[in-house]
Amino acid sequence: MIRVGILGASGYTGYELVRLLRAHPKVHLTALGAHSKAGQHFKDIFDGAATWDELPILQTTQEIDFKALDLVFCALPHGQSAHAVKNLMDQTDLRLIIDLSNDHRLHDYSGYDGLPQGHPYPEIAQQAVYGLSEWYFKQISTARLIANPGCYPTSILLPLLPLLSAGLIDPDHIIANSASGTSGAGRGASVRLLHAEVSESFYAYGLGTHRHSLEIQEQINKAALSTPQRRAVFNPHLLPISRGILSTLTLELKDADPDKAQEALEQAYAQAPFVHVAPLGQTITTKSVRGTNVCRIALHPAVNANQIVITSAIDNLLKGAAGQAVQNMNLALGFEEGLGLINQTVLQP
Amino acid sequence: MIRVGILGASGYTGYELVRLLRAHPKVHLTALGAHSKAGQHFKDIFDGAATWDELPILQTTQEIDFKALDLVFCALPHGQSAHAVKNLMDQTDLRLIIDLSNDHRLHDYSGYDGLPQGHPYPEIAQQAVYGLSEWYFKQISTARLIANPGCYPTSILLPLLPLLSAGLIDPDHIIANSASGTSGAGRGASVRLLHAEVSESFYAYGLGTHRHSLEIQEQINKAALSTPQRRAVFNPHLLPISRGILSTLTLELKDADPDKAQEALEQAYAQAPFVHVAPLGQTITTKSVRGTNVCRIALHPAVNANQIVITSAIDNLLKGAAGQAVQNMNLALGFEEGLGLINQTVLQP
Amino acid sequence: MIRVGILGASGYTGYELVRLLRAHPKVHLTALGAHSKAGQHFKDIFDGAATWDELPILQTTQEIDFKALDLVFCALPHGQSAHAVKNLMDQTDLRLIIDLSNDHRLHDYSGYDGLPQGHPYPEIAQQAVYGLSEWYFKQISTARLIANPGCYPTSILLPLLPLLSAGLIDPDHIIANSASGTSGAGRGASVRLLHAEVSESFYAYGLGTHRHSLEIQEQINKAALSTPQRRAVFNPHLLPISRGILSTLTLELKDADPDKAQEALEQAYAQAPFVHVAPLGQTITTKSVRGTNVCRIALHPAVNANQIVITSAIDNLLKGAAGQAVQNMNLALGFEEGLGLINQTVLQP
Amino acid sequence: MIRVGILGASGYTGYELVRLLRAHPKVHLTALGAHSKAGQHFKDIFDGAATWDELPILQTTQEIDFKALDLVFCALPHGQSAHAVKNLMDQTDLRLIIDLSNDHRLHDYSGYDGLPQGHPYPEIAQQAVYGLSEWYFKQISTARLIANPGCYPTSILLPLLPLLSAGLIDPDHIIANSASGTSGAGRGASVRLLHAEVSESFYAYGLGTHRHSLEIQEQINKAALSTPQRRAVFNPHLLPISRGILSTLTLELKDADPDKAQEALEQAYAQAPFVHVAPLGQTITTKSVRGTNVCRIALHPAVNANQIVITSAIDNLLKGAAGQAVQNMNLALGFEEGLGLINQTVLQP
Repeated sequence: MIRVGILGASGYTGYELVRLLRAHPKVHLTALGAHSKAGQHFKDIFDGAATWDELPILQTTQEIDFKALDLVFCALPHGQSAHAVKNLMDQTDLRLIIDLSNDHRLHDYSGYDGLPQGHPYPEIAQQAVYGLSEWYFKQISTARLIANPGCYPTSILLPLLPLLSAGLIDPDHIIANSASGTSGAGRGASVRLLHAEVSESFYAYGLGTHRHSLEIQEQINKAALSTPQRRAVFNPHLLPISRGILSTLTLELKDADPDKAQEALEQAYAQAPFVHVAPLGQTITTKSVRGTNVCRIALHPAVNANQIVITSAIDNLLKGAAGQAVQNMNLALGFEEGLGLINQTVLQP
Repeated sequence: MIRVGILGASGYTGYELVRLLRAHPKVHLTALGAHSKAGQHFKDIFDGAATWDELPILQTTQEIDFKALDLVFCALPHGQSAHAVKNLMDQTDLRLIIDLSNDHRLHDYSGYDGLPQGHPYPEIAQQAVYGLSEWYFKQISTARLIANPGCYPTSILLPLLPLLSAGLIDPDHIIANSASGTSGAGRGASVRLLHAEVSESFYAYGLGTHRHSLEIQEQINKAALSTPQRRAVFNPHLLPISRGILSTLTLELKDADPDKAQEALEQAYAQAPFVHVAPLGQTITTKSVRGTNVCRIALHPAVNANQIVITSAIDNLLKGAAGQAVQNMNLALGFEEGLGLINQTVLQP
Repeated sequence: MIRVGILGASGYTGYELVRLLRAHPKVHLTALGAHSKAGQHFKDIFDGAATWDELPILQTTQEIDFKALDLVFCALPHGQSAHAVKNLMDQTDLRLIIDLSNDHRLHDYSGYDGLPQGHPYPEIAQQAVYGLSEWYFKQISTARLIANPGCYPTSILLPLLPLLSAGLIDPDHIIANSASGTSGAGRGASVRLLHAEVSESFYAYGLGTHRHSLEIQEQINKAALSTPQRRAVFNPHLLPISRGILSTLTLELKDADPDKAQEALEQAYAQAPFVHVAPLGQTITTKSVRGTNVCRIALHPAVNANQIVITSAIDNLLKGAAGQAVQNMNLALGFEEGLGLINQTVLQP
Repeated sequence: MIRVGILGASGYTGYELVRLLRAHPKVHLTALGAHSKAGQHFKDIFDGAATWDELPILQTTQEIDFKALDLVFCALPHGQSAHAVKNLMDQTDLRLIIDLSNDHRLHDYSGYDGLPQGHPYPEIAQQAVYGLSEWYFKQISTARLIANPGCYPTSILLPLLPLLSAGLIDPDHIIANSASGTSGAGRGASVRLLHAEVSESFYAYGLGTHRHSLEIQEQINKAALSTPQRRAVFNPHLLPISRGILSTLTLELKDADPDKAQEALEQAYAQAPFVHVAPLGQTITTKSVRGTNVCRIALHPAVNANQIVITSAIDNLLKGAAGQAVQNMNLALGFEEGLGLINQTVLQP
């Protein structure tokens, strides 16, 4: 059994990690870190856990005995995580660290405002493997530090990378409109995310400035056959649902054949247990992946011959965070890729 | 493996039955009946099933070969079910029939408007065992026909019966206010249940007239130590959530000791895997049981010494329908009570 | 024109007061107090105000020139309000002060935990007139200090008082189950009220302990023909809607004639512009009063001959707060009762 | 007083028309048509109208005396409307007909599947003036038949037309992602729009095929300085809110100066009472226009120098339907443009 600790267990991603890992056949959940809740029981802060077996009591990071752990999931806030990971990398013998923050996803931190002066520990940052499971499984399998991808980037890159790497689309004309449920913004007290503010409303935010834009662009640049001259447009929106992301991509085909693009997608994910390419033109709802680690992708012919629209849906807390993190753990430790993740089903209504 | 058929597979309860039974280790899902959708695939009508393995194609009842089945779940509309069950009881060799409609839950059908002239097949109705799992498990274990309880009655009777049968509360002063999510009203096209009608609204309906009132009262009468002189008040409400029931009961104690009532509840369900009695005064949210077969119950001292308030929460489609039906199947066929039901967890946000 | 100031303009009640008063034909909105937002524009903190004409800039209480005001609405938090009102009463020449907090609604503060040691200024508290408009309009017309009622109490007392004062119901058996939208809990940052916590959930809270229980009971005691021996049961619940309260009352008739109760309600409110008694048995949705100052009431025969169930709906921020406050201003200053309130209509979907 | 009739009064648009027109100072609401509800009262079918003064009883179209009317709003379903309007144009002396369906908005009906064989009455279709109030007010002022614009097109064209007609953006690279609340799909009974289907979900639909695409393109073609070589991409989505549309446009500037575009927008709508151009970069929520006839528009610099993103929000039932129809009536009959529309305010929470 792998002995696992979670830093930041009191957030929504922390909850999902606990939920998945307590049932994972290869994992012993050994330590739960939650600074401001130290001393409390997990079920005191999440009533969804009311009927679960006893879990380790919440601790401060200082209280955790990292020698007793093989693996740590770091679900701390962006900006804090860089420092916590530095300590874990330098001062522990942990076999694996999976960071779910933004702090280790980039190669170039110059435009990243989460760490205002660039990355403070570039030698650590360089060791991080970008954990988009379906694309970096080889590097993941030997990594000591995995930077788990952002929720928006996961929903956008999974459909994009096969098309870019096959040279089927123009990397200079990528437009991604995404919408996320409110759990994506975390569990901090906030007026902006009050039910009375969010319900019956919808809006775009962070236009031109969202941090995930850097992460998306780096991966586009790596996959594109030639260096893009322009950046992808990324327009995020806040949805009055608790979980789920839908990304709607408008793309320019290099030749006017949507079937080739469809084929490239199907082929890319033929063996992927968690990416499902739907038949051409199928409607994809966020609800149809809610509670699962699945990304569903559908391609739609657009009004102009050389354009396509792609929709892709994930659960932002699972394939967009905790689920992909567990998938990466499985890949890194040589377990079956879907262990602890494959029995998830959708509550339709 | 038990060969199972489902009649009425295209409703929300049908979906939940399929979702649970396809993963049940002792069940082979052999036939799915859905009159108006015959010939379609299950995933065509529920996109939550988009990534599931192939299931039997939807059939009319006439097309189903009942000889190939051991067990049928009947999730047909109230009124239709009585006739379908009659046929199954008379013309098949099915080992077990579990009816999820209202049509076999009563002993006295005189006030039941679902079958306007009383029950048409009283000899069938008399054979039905009322399937409140925690109270009738003995009868269930030998039944051929199980009448699965209503969602509201389940949420109300589970806290009520231990107190009534211990003589701790006054059966003449039972007041139950319940609120249900919209999936409880089924998947039929309806203006009343449109999102634009339901969202941002809340109301009481069926006051003094709801069918579940009869079912609740029959069970109260059976459990009470003496015949009640007055009926329980049952006030149902419609909630703008998709699933979940909360019942809030105001009860008169025979002596002024809430601790005795708490103890009676804890004792009654000490061994029950799906009924959890919370510590005195705990808040119980519908979300904390969403997606599970669990009923959570909490007792609260009221402002007057000899009163208590009890809150109880279930998922109306699981403990209130499909989940309890599977639990009853397990009990009837000698499987472990929680088989196929115990790994359910709550999506907290 | 009456020169009006609002203390606590940055909360939801503050927003509603501004929204109503800026369009009130007899009011000049002269000062807006909002401690933590002083120096900002109203439209900076509420985008619903984005298209409104310029309003006074937000100020601290200290910055407001109370000599330039005739009337102050005090929408400060409970506990703070008692002190603010004391200052206004003693140190200004304001013609009228309308307090929307809990701090002046009671005669006996011994059980009120909002002011832990009882009311600090009993001589002020005694001057306050309880502002349930339809019942205290005479006292309101000559008041200097009006204690605007709580939202739950308004929804409960409007149907209750006519029946109690006519001796038609038993004051010892009053059971009120109420459910409120989330705006009732205010606009403070809070995890408990995050969209991701509230959506798809429903629960009871404050059972046996909610502050409004004292307010309700005092008014029951005043209206009942003889002193009640037991307190009314008040079970509040949180709804995943942004605004609206439904109260469902279960009551014991002294004689078994619901028609008499219906008649008493109709007669009591025959002239009331903002209380509408529906035909016997009509369904009352919270949405049907959303955005209006109206309370809708419907009476329903119950399953037992001598019981009735009453449903009543209000908009918690209007008849339950800002709307009734404006109605009280109109009554106190001799304006037409509905001035600035009567053109409100319901957005049905 | 203008004597007004409404055909299709039982839908959501019908409700909004009645709500606005009953309070309009120049209008007498004389006839309400609602085929399937004929003989009922308006308040029987919409409880939002429960407290309104008596309205004309619902009638079939055949029962309505059109001689007693000056003006008819036609809110019938697409496809039916063309025939109804033909009859009104030919067989009545109505001064003005405002059609809220898709049936008269185009000049070229060849691709329009609402009228499968092209428009059956081209001579009527040609008389229709496209009722985008801010752009066609002159033609509207003399029209007998006004084709009220679609909800999506209104939200897209209002920001687009000033930029196109000033030659500031490239008409070949227009990408519009829009999302609408569920009331936009009408009040017909439908499984797809049930609360239990829509809540907690989000999806794109009609990609490449939505009827509004034709309407949008025709107006783009008219406004663009040269004929576009490609069509605008229009990606509609369904939101789990009851009302509101947000459109997010990604556009290519001809020169890289967002300030010029901002200036063009501000200038275009400087005198428009119902179009508000926000400061550069402001967040625009659908809730901030809910219940009003206002369109709010904000321009955002994008990541690439020569791109901008524009967000625009309307209430789909008001500026997107009934509100703009009343605005058009005011323009056509010489009333003040905002009569009956300007006192609308936003319920913030």
